[in-house]
Amino acid sequence: MPTAAAPSVTTRELTDRECWDYLAAREYGRIAVIRDGEPAIYPIGYAVAPGGIRIRTRIGSKLLAILIDGRVAFEVDDLDEHVARSVMVVGWAEQLDAHDAAESSTPVAPYAGADAHAVLLITPTRITGRELSLDAATVRSP
Amino acid sequence: MPTAAAPSVTTRELTDRECWDYLAAREYGRIAVIRDGEPAIYPIGYAVAPGGIRIRTRIGSKLLAILIDGRVAFEVDDLDEHVARSVMVVGWAEQLDAHDAAESSTPVAPYAGADAHAVLLITPTRITGRELSLDAATVRSP
Repeated sequence: MPTAAAPSVTTRELTDRECWDYLAAREYGRIAVIRDGEPAIYPIGYAVAPGGIRIRTRIGSKLLAILIDGRVAFEVDDLDEHVARSVMVVGWAEQLDAHDAAESSTPVAPYAGADAHAVLLITPTRITGRELSLDAATVRSP
Repeated sequence: MPTAAAPSVTTRELTDRECWDYLAAREYGRIAVIRDGEPAIYPIGYAVAPGGIRIRTRIGSKLLAILIDGRVAFEVDDLDEHVARSVMVVGWAEQLDAHDAAESSTPVAPYAGADAHAVLLITPTRITGRELSLDAATVRSP
């Protein structure tokens, strides 16, 4: 039996519908931004809402300053022993005004804290998703 | 009982040692890069190795092209009902030559596939980590 064997992987692109269903069924992802010319990643709670992805953060926070009117990537993933899936939204983040924020059904993500009153909407310009399946029957030597 | 209550959150910065211990105990994270001027996130298997973080991908892959000699952020996180933790490494990714790659103990991350022969080293220039704890005793109304 080969010692460095790895299973073969089948990749499938998710449809837009599958991507949104995937996001709607979850509530915790990561957001990537460009900060001072370099990428940065922050885990964050979210909710799928009309128009895109809504997130909360503290007013005056460092993250808010980076996000406002900025190009962002938002990603959610999971994996188990057989399948790995990930969905990525690329878009623009903008802060909602008090009226729109008040109408928001965005849940208060627990780790955002009770003072996370700034609500942002990420408007997607692109959504992509992939599902990787391990084919245990075709384990082979590299 | 308030309907929009959220617990208060205590934030603690992790020490460098705690960050590395956290990374060494896990094997699955996300890498963020700047692609055509916008951020992008990819989930990826990894191993902590001397000098930084080692990852594998396919030779000739799109990800490899983006990563080589590029500024990257690498992040691992987890959360449960009480604590959320995340560690981020910012650094440079470079492809190891065949000799160094062969000496690598980097496991073949299953979802990288059997043909993931390109081994990259992310050399950290900065590592940061945070632990957020929910204080259930201080639940309050916003």
